[in-house]
Amino acid sequence: MPAPPLALTQGDPAGIGPELALLAWRERQQRALPAFACITDIDHLAQTAQRLGLDVPLISCEWDAVNRCFAKALPVIAHGHAVTAMPGRPDQASAAGTIGSITSAVAAVRQGQASAVVTSPIAKSVLYAAGFAHPGHTEFLAHLAADGGAPLHPVMMLWCEDLAVVPVTIHIPLRSVPDALTQDLIVETGRIVAGELSRRFGIAAPRIAVSGLNPHAGEGGALGREDDEVVAPAIARLRALGIEARGPYPADTMFHARARAGYDVALAMYHDQALIPIKTIAFDEGVNVTLGLPFIRTSPDHGTAFDIAGQGIARPDSLCAALRLAARMAAQPAQASA
Amino acid sequence: MPAPPLALTQGDPAGIGPELALLAWRERQQRALPAFACITDIDHLAQTAQRLGLDVPLISCEWDAVNRCFAKALPVIAHGHAVTAMPGRPDQASAAGTIGSITSAVAAVRQGQASAVVTSPIAKSVLYAAGFAHPGHTEFLAHLAADGGAPLHPVMMLWCEDLAVVPVTIHIPLRSVPDALTQDLIVETGRIVAGELSRRFGIAAPRIAVSGLNPHAGEGGALGREDDEVVAPAIARLRALGIEARGPYPADTMFHARARAGYDVALAMYHDQALIPIKTIAFDEGVNVTLGLPFIRTSPDHGTAFDIAGQGIARPDSLCAALRLAARMAAQPAQASA
Repeated sequence: MPAPPLALTQGDPAGIGPELALLAWRERQQRALPAFACITDIDHLAQTAQRLGLDVPLISCEWDAVNRCFAKALPVIAHGHAVTAMPGRPDQASAAGTIGSITSAVAAVRQGQASAVVTSPIAKSVLYAAGFAHPGHTEFLAHLAADGGAPLHPVMMLWCEDLAVVPVTIHIPLRSVPDALTQDLIVETGRIVAGELSRRFGIAAPRIAVSGLNPHAGEGGALGREDDEVVAPAIARLRALGIEARGPYPADTMFHARARAGYDVALAMYHDQALIPIKTIAFDEGVNVTLGLPFIRTSPDHGTAFDIAGQGIARPDSLCAALRLAARMAAQPAQASA
Repeated sequence: MPAPPLALTQGDPAGIGPELALLAWRERQQRALPAFACITDIDHLAQTAQRLGLDVPLISCEWDAVNRCFAKALPVIAHGHAVTAMPGRPDQASAAGTIGSITSAVAAVRQGQASAVVTSPIAKSVLYAAGFAHPGHTEFLAHLAADGGAPLHPVMMLWCEDLAVVPVTIHIPLRSVPDALTQDLIVETGRIVAGELSRRFGIAAPRIAVSGLNPHAGEGGALGREDDEVVAPAIARLRALGIEARGPYPADTMFHARARAGYDVALAMYHDQALIPIKTIAFDEGVNVTLGLPFIRTSPDHGTAFDIAGQGIARPDSLCAALRLAARMAAQPAQASA
């Protein structure tokens, strides 16, 4: 029996999400894409196709028909909200559909109708204006995933064929990083990463390379004490848990091709330390993966790009990579036992 | 008349410097190297060659003979100190020769006998033990260059064919970066970089891309205020000086190939933000260039590597790139007017 299809959310309908879904389906063969359905308003997606002159047949269907229909038409699952947004003009009237698409995708994956959630970019400011109360996309998914139970700790991983990297602290000012970086946070992040690489990527004993916070990983304390006092003890705790973590390594020498061959994932201490190397080597093909959820979630590593929406110049590379990776993760035999 | 040769310093004789000088000379033709002389103890260099089985003829000579001799033998200029160090065994008895080589190189370049200084790696701890009172190699060069006059502000640039990047703050703990990063420091650094790229690299109006300190360049203040309050005003001051500076840009999206095509040099706010991208794309071929001195100075972008010294496995790629770049900078016609 083939795996269930992927659930692709609508994202902000004024952004590039809708056109990328169309472009990805059109290139499904040359890009070897798995079957997916777009959860959106079919009339809005049809208008997007017409506006861009994209000859993409759409078919409104239910989850159990998606695999069967995908070769001939882009399957669309209704979220029940009319979408009227124009490209490049974010509109808070779209918020209900944007949110509805995410909740539908999570419901489908939890019910086994979809094998993974692939999210299109949203604009938090548009949702906030409509009363959305979560800090971001990932936190909302974690909230839905927790389903009223204990809160989850979602972990962001950036992935391309050549590098996987996880920032331990993410969207905070650089000034706040040293105090936000605790042993517990590093250990908890490393634990989730190791478990998920094993479960979702089929790596039996993932090798985790941990960067130092300071230049030269602190150079024995001369360039900062956190590497000796926080990062190194956290690595020791991870190793005591049986996790193959090593470091702290000077971050600048961790990411060239020979160094990357020595580990499966790099744990970086802050946003730019993680995102600079992967965006330098794989700007168009990077995928954002959320680890630590009870289901698989990937997303393209770009935003809504309102400035170019509707112009037909956005590239579906990252979305296609996100779809392929989600299917690959879903195909892991170990997953069922998780 | 051909340009004067390059002055290559000895570096720590227990490190990989001596063997790299031999390897570079041996590959002078295939690597298209300019003429250089090594300032060292010829007996020690001969022992290094013999120990590694490198058939490199050495010739003891004066500066005016280097260009003439270089095709047939590696020219050696005496610094007047006997060197007895064994590979991999740093020894403070070497300090006088290590320092003497640097002072001789600076004297030669100031007198026009050499066209640039290329420095081999030193170990500060070895020199400190022998009473060396400067924070590092570059500061010592700046001290020699100032020659008792006003102190100089040397600026470190990392360079490869695909990227030039300057960290505004360098060897300080990450925690200290936000307060060390002042408008004046950014402006002064940018001013020196623009002047030197024009004078030494022949770029009439250098395009400087300035990174933000915080993730997403602060995202309008949500992720830190320094980008709006410190970096942006510094860029405005540079532009008021007629310098083509732009930014602050999110650092993670500045370094992929398409982005790099848009600027001549990137000004990064701290060590890893600058060194991660260049070492990711050019780990072996990066060159360290010191801007802001009254002479040209380059050096390979690696350390003494005591752990592999004497084994014949060190690669001369970065030294060769440093020699070629020094000659290229020295050949700039504008230089004489500086």
